[in-house]
Amino acid sequence: MKIWQKNIDVDSFVESFTVGNDRAMDLQLATADVLGSLAHTKMLNSINLLSDEDLALVQKELKTIYQEIQSGNFTIEDTVEDVHSQIEMMLTQRVGEAGKKIHSGRSRNDQVLVDLKLYFRFEIKQLVDQVTALFQQLIRLSNENKDILIPGYTHLQIAMPSSFGLWFAAYAESLVDDLELLKAAWNISNKNPLGSAAGYGSSFPLNRRMTTDLLGFQDLNYNVVYAQMGRGKTERVLAQAMSSVAATLGKFAMDVTLFINQNFGFISFPDHLTTGSSIMPHKKNPDVFEIMRGRCNKIQALPNEIALMTTNLPSGYHRELQLLKESLFPSFKSLNDCLEICTFMLDHISLKDAILEDPKYDYLFSVEVVNNEVLSGIPFRDAYKNIGAAIESGTFKPSKTVNHTHEGSIGNLQNDQIERQFNEVVAGFNFEKVDQAIDELVR
Amino acid sequence: MKIWQKNIDVDSFVESFTVGNDRAMDLQLATADVLGSLAHTKMLNSINLLSDEDLALVQKELKTIYQEIQSGNFTIEDTVEDVHSQIEMMLTQRVGEAGKKIHSGRSRNDQVLVDLKLYFRFEIKQLVDQVTALFQQLIRLSNENKDILIPGYTHLQIAMPSSFGLWFAAYAESLVDDLELLKAAWNISNKNPLGSAAGYGSSFPLNRRMTTDLLGFQDLNYNVVYAQMGRGKTERVLAQAMSSVAATLGKFAMDVTLFINQNFGFISFPDHLTTGSSIMPHKKNPDVFEIMRGRCNKIQALPNEIALMTTNLPSGYHRELQLLKESLFPSFKSLNDCLEICTFMLDHISLKDAILEDPKYDYLFSVEVVNNEVLSGIPFRDAYKNIGAAIESGTFKPSKTVNHTHEGSIGNLQNDQIERQFNEVVAGFNFEKVDQAIDELVR
Amino acid sequence: MKIWQKNIDVDSFVESFTVGNDRAMDLQLATADVLGSLAHTKMLNSINLLSDEDLALVQKELKTIYQEIQSGNFTIEDTVEDVHSQIEMMLTQRVGEAGKKIHSGRSRNDQVLVDLKLYFRFEIKQLVDQVTALFQQLIRLSNENKDILIPGYTHLQIAMPSSFGLWFAAYAESLVDDLELLKAAWNISNKNPLGSAAGYGSSFPLNRRMTTDLLGFQDLNYNVVYAQMGRGKTERVLAQAMSSVAATLGKFAMDVTLFINQNFGFISFPDHLTTGSSIMPHKKNPDVFEIMRGRCNKIQALPNEIALMTTNLPSGYHRELQLLKESLFPSFKSLNDCLEICTFMLDHISLKDAILEDPKYDYLFSVEVVNNEVLSGIPFRDAYKNIGAAIESGTFKPSKTVNHTHEGSIGNLQNDQIERQFNEVVAGFNFEKVDQAIDELVR
Amino acid sequence: MKIWQKNIDVDSFVESFTVGNDRAMDLQLATADVLGSLAHTKMLNSINLLSDEDLALVQKELKTIYQEIQSGNFTIEDTVEDVHSQIEMMLTQRVGEAGKKIHSGRSRNDQVLVDLKLYFRFEIKQLVDQVTALFQQLIRLSNENKDILIPGYTHLQIAMPSSFGLWFAAYAESLVDDLELLKAAWNISNKNPLGSAAGYGSSFPLNRRMTTDLLGFQDLNYNVVYAQMGRGKTERVLAQAMSSVAATLGKFAMDVTLFINQNFGFISFPDHLTTGSSIMPHKKNPDVFEIMRGRCNKIQALPNEIALMTTNLPSGYHRELQLLKESLFPSFKSLNDCLEICTFMLDHISLKDAILEDPKYDYLFSVEVVNNEVLSGIPFRDAYKNIGAAIESGTFKPSKTVNHTHEGSIGNLQNDQIERQFNEVVAGFNFEKVDQAIDELVR
Repeated sequence: MKIWQKNIDVDSFVESFTVGNDRAMDLQLATADVLGSLAHTKMLNSINLLSDEDLALVQKELKTIYQEIQSGNFTIEDTVEDVHSQIEMMLTQRVGEAGKKIHSGRSRNDQVLVDLKLYFRFEIKQLVDQVTALFQQLIRLSNENKDILIPGYTHLQIAMPSSFGLWFAAYAESLVDDLELLKAAWNISNKNPLGSAAGYGSSFPLNRRMTTDLLGFQDLNYNVVYAQMGRGKTERVLAQAMSSVAATLGKFAMDVTLFINQNFGFISFPDHLTTGSSIMPHKKNPDVFEIMRGRCNKIQALPNEIALMTTNLPSGYHRELQLLKESLFPSFKSLNDCLEICTFMLDHISLKDAILEDPKYDYLFSVEVVNNEVLSGIPFRDAYKNIGAAIESGTFKPSKTVNHTHEGSIGNLQNDQIERQFNEVVAGFNFEKVDQAIDELVR
Repeated sequence: MKIWQKNIDVDSFVESFTVGNDRAMDLQLATADVLGSLAHTKMLNSINLLSDEDLALVQKELKTIYQEIQSGNFTIEDTVEDVHSQIEMMLTQRVGEAGKKIHSGRSRNDQVLVDLKLYFRFEIKQLVDQVTALFQQLIRLSNENKDILIPGYTHLQIAMPSSFGLWFAAYAESLVDDLELLKAAWNISNKNPLGSAAGYGSSFPLNRRMTTDLLGFQDLNYNVVYAQMGRGKTERVLAQAMSSVAATLGKFAMDVTLFINQNFGFISFPDHLTTGSSIMPHKKNPDVFEIMRGRCNKIQALPNEIALMTTNLPSGYHRELQLLKESLFPSFKSLNDCLEICTFMLDHISLKDAILEDPKYDYLFSVEVVNNEVLSGIPFRDAYKNIGAAIESGTFKPSKTVNHTHEGSIGNLQNDQIERQFNEVVAGFNFEKVDQAIDELVR
Repeated sequence: MKIWQKNIDVDSFVESFTVGNDRAMDLQLATADVLGSLAHTKMLNSINLLSDEDLALVQKELKTIYQEIQSGNFTIEDTVEDVHSQIEMMLTQRVGEAGKKIHSGRSRNDQVLVDLKLYFRFEIKQLVDQVTALFQQLIRLSNENKDILIPGYTHLQIAMPSSFGLWFAAYAESLVDDLELLKAAWNISNKNPLGSAAGYGSSFPLNRRMTTDLLGFQDLNYNVVYAQMGRGKTERVLAQAMSSVAATLGKFAMDVTLFINQNFGFISFPDHLTTGSSIMPHKKNPDVFEIMRGRCNKIQALPNEIALMTTNLPSGYHRELQLLKESLFPSFKSLNDCLEICTFMLDHISLKDAILEDPKYDYLFSVEVVNNEVLSGIPFRDAYKNIGAAIESGTFKPSKTVNHTHEGSIGNLQNDQIERQFNEVVAGFNFEKVDQAIDELVR
Repeated sequence: MKIWQKNIDVDSFVESFTVGNDRAMDLQLATADVLGSLAHTKMLNSINLLSDEDLALVQKELKTIYQEIQSGNFTIEDTVEDVHSQIEMMLTQRVGEAGKKIHSGRSRNDQVLVDLKLYFRFEIKQLVDQVTALFQQLIRLSNENKDILIPGYTHLQIAMPSSFGLWFAAYAESLVDDLELLKAAWNISNKNPLGSAAGYGSSFPLNRRMTTDLLGFQDLNYNVVYAQMGRGKTERVLAQAMSSVAATLGKFAMDVTLFINQNFGFISFPDHLTTGSSIMPHKKNPDVFEIMRGRCNKIQALPNEIALMTTNLPSGYHRELQLLKESLFPSFKSLNDCLEICTFMLDHISLKDAILEDPKYDYLFSVEVVNNEVLSGIPFRDAYKNIGAAIESGTFKPSKTVNHTHEGSIGNLQNDQIERQFNEVVAGFNFEKVDQAIDELVR
């Protein structure tokens, strides 16, 4: 069954090409689709396009379907084109004529649009939760290991003293900025496109403000042409936000594979969390972090993929926008998996002590010695030349006490401030408002 | 002169390869570099690393250099490596020993970082100003032409009635969402990295909160390792924000080239704003919009370029981060030019009237007719079949009155609400706070 | 079972993260894996690392497994890590100790490398076959419709006369150049990496020339470190070649959606090959071409995805190279589907006649009129000005006979030359040599 | 002066936006433009569109301009739109009316197309020359240092013995495969688009075969619509080929920065080829290789940029195709610089000896020990378990003699075969044929 089917049969070859694995993707929209219909039908009733009796029937049955979806008892039949048709068909089978009336005043286009926005809100919340768990893990490790020094590198050359405290918290603070992009994606997702129909609105006297409130949206996508233009754009922005988290994780994974390498040897993981080789019996490979790096770099490629698939398309709906689901949906799970396994692996990390006692790290302290001269009154540029000469002539003596006290330095990490920043961004999402609205809708 | 020059000469071949056209890029950082030094030296004085006399000398001369830069009297000499060295050299020539002391407690790395953040703030503000001008132009055109109908397309097929009012305002509302990304880029840029030195902090008792306040930053990049990791990341986020504005403009340009095409013929521009052909004397080509489309698509490629240049680099500074200037800086001008010329061109757009009187557009009204049947009590799916049959048999009669009243539809554009959204996002930047701090610093 | 399993159990969470859906991808490598083992074991026997009896046993059973794979009776068990382990396990179950010996002198790394190269050869041949079918379809349509004129556009503005003959053959000739890239990918794929082991060779006296000949490779990847570096690179080159075919198809699809649009109206497809709308009963949407465009643009994004996943990885194997399968393998099917459905749809295309009789196309002929003046002796620049003036004053009279005779123009398409070019590139693949070697190996 | 200028003045704002820095780019096309005109005018004469006298005048003066360009005495005046107008204007000033006639039978579109193809041929040849120099350097270093062992890594974990011989030659062989893509780009570039006019051919009886031969092209772009479609596509293919060379260089640079890092310490460069730090007097940074990596990654982003700028544009010329020059042209110089400086730096590389004597590399030899057991008759899987157990219990004893003899392994690099492969690909370009034709044209 396809809802736009007239008397003409569409060749099955064509159908399988165009539908692709859309049904599998659509399963993830089932919850959102019911929510959209719960709100839409209440609104239809308010403008007298659905009787009180029909509304009662439809609401009751939609809530039943909602429960079936939550408990995993929902599938899209092979003969049904998409999740929207499936739910409408189930409803019509169960409540008769009333089910046929719920599509009044909307098009599949705005139905998909609102489903996607509701689904994206849900996925963003999941991501923020996983980011939070990793953030807390990193802050904990930073606090607990703030006194273990490691070399700091610039140009991949030994540069100045760093610490595990700095290293872990750096990635925590990186997640704060990543949340800013997720917040932008949230703000863009949290506007109601329902009522835009096929992208040109409807002649029915819809009350779009009402569905906005019922679905807990912050605001409307007012202009109906823009509501449709949001398709592809919302996906791209969301992918950009995900790419930012992914870039942070990917860089961390690169650091890990370096630090676990035997030439560095700063960290290790227990045997059961590394893997072996089919021909080298001594190998303990950091596969988790390599896969994490690869998955994150794949996610970093996603915004560009979406750009290539949408660039230079004039305004108005185009069928390939459907394909963006295939690109985007699996990335949510992939990024969540990366965040979760990273948090998990960090439960098991071992840190090496006394790394800087190796004499190859002596030069790390050259700046300290320069600064000591400066504090004793020698101009910086002159002190710099003195120590440079000492290093060249082999007479340089490191002073291995690190006495960094300013904000964000080894001796003063300010992790509480970083936590404050994180909490402030998270508070801005106002997830509670959305949760309340949804609770009310399905109650 | 290179400030890290010791007794060793760097081969000129190597130098020209590594420095590239960094000097040209650096010119744009001159203002920011002076601002950073004004704040840094005040802070050095507060922690007794710069005497009151030295501070007075240095502040006075830095302000003079600031004025020289503003009035266009500043260059980077060929023998000088970068803008930072140029300004420090000028200062030392004019005030002697005091000039040599200002580099205490910072590295070229955090000097560049803070310069970039200050420069990015400036460029973001410029972009927001240009976006605002275009936004207002689009809203004006939408309001003035809200009653002129045009065909709406889906799948590039004639679909339903639209209007110039909808079309212009759709792009205005698109800019609202684009600002959300610029806001995220602003929030990430508006944090102070100064004091992170080479990415591992300093043993001097720097007061980073003080420079944060002096430079009008909202907050600190606390962790010094993260402050350095922000290099490349800030650029990528900013490029992503720019790509969002560019995607909106690019799509608009695509619409324009279609609508100006003789098969559509909805709009036109005066002759002096189109160009001709070297062999076809009748041509009036929309070159401005084609170039706009191309420039915007180039900007859409920028975040990916930055990702490719930074992915899989472990933490810590790497020299190629310098190259990101070449990718990013010219894009600011390019995007600003696109915004400005778009606003300008729209001053001269001519809109065709009575487009929908052409009978090829009759089918635009099929949904209206379906809806009329629904309003008279026929279930939607049945009405849909009736009209479909009428169309196939050639008996369909359009009803050309459009009676759309809901929020965001042809008859109820809600442009005031879109303006409210726009103003709310702009207010969140709080540019005034930044301007005040900078004014105080250079006064 | 994992072949590198020692006494340590790998946490199932870690395993599912790292293995991902590698098993599903690996199914496509089963044929190649058996071929690789057939050649490797013959070679092992030749250097006395496998007895004649063991060789006979192993060859016989591998050929049986080969037949099982061809007939669809092959799966990778859930407890088995990958296709290589599955086949080795099956072999060992059936022939005992001899099965355990076949891994001598190779590593999973070069086993995967050779599997991929054999698989890529197969997929490239499939693509060339599909490209050939579409090429012939396009040439046929060009030849059959060479006299039907259509407008030619530049800047999307009506420019000069074109024809369906030109339009179809242009895309045919585009495929010729696309084949050049597929040929480069073929040349790079058609070199033998077997014997490179984990990327650093083996102390066994392997005869790599022998496996090269047995597997029909053109040459060796000599250097073992380079053989391993080919991983990721071969994938990227292949993706680049596919992106070239995809760009051709994507552009064609864009033309089709424009030409089928009612404002152009040059072509149409029968109802059963277009789709409808859920609210607009008159719609006949070109979904096939929109999906084709989207799929092709997704493929165009693939080389960049691979670049992002491999850039800045130092030499030597990294686990995430495994993830490239997920990106690349489904693209083969997707591109083949696009080629096939395009060829199919073109069987059903209807072309409109007498398009240029519409007066809006009169200006198409302005260059003809200019040229006529030139042929009568007026300098080009003067003739151009005369006709430009006539057009501006409304006195221009078109001369609608098109008399183009030079190579590649409307009246002289030279499709036979384009076919010659196509055949020359295809001949360069020398697929026969490969087929013969494989036939001999499995006989 | 703009050659399509009629009585209408184009607003200077619009002009500067659309022309951009096209003039600077166009300078690089000057030689090609003269070559194209030399061939075109000979052909015009052969079809009686240019008298013998005019031809003689024009040929003589074009050759003079050609010499002026070669000797650096050529500029594009600010009032002239592009290189084509500049040369035509110079010619007309010097030879009068005859100069005005040379544009007959061509359009700026095919003039640019042929200029680009001639220019690309020149740049490809330059690249092949630079690739050859680096290839030879790498082979030399490989041969000279084939006996110095280094650790081989997989998963960035110490894996098996490698050698400088293997390492250098791996990158040499990588360049062989990169040439395959340059060869594809050459084949696509080496076809003649001249005569396609604005993309729809000409009514003049042009002899396109004649200009093909005169310009030394291998073949024609027959179909005139395809000739125009080659714009953007040729650029993308060329960028893909360059990205392949860039990927090889970029990976090499990553290896270098790792190997020069003090934790690895395998290689070094003299002080005057490294750079220092503004605050750390001990630093010797590998800036050249970092900048090389960054430039190469930027080039790797180029094909995607071109794809984004051209995707979803229907067939026919669009003005933004002009912008591709800005993206592509500077990349030629950038990649050539990278190749040249890499060859130069390798003249100065120092390799550390006796690296593997450090006990942390003992496990490199575990596979050797496994293989020794296999050669003594123990099945591979059993030997693997034995050695794994020895490693876990700390009783493993390495056997540090490396006895690799097969093709491409440490003891048998087969660099002569790699050189043979390289030479075979280079021979396929047949640069001599092109050089001969051009020599004849300008003599």
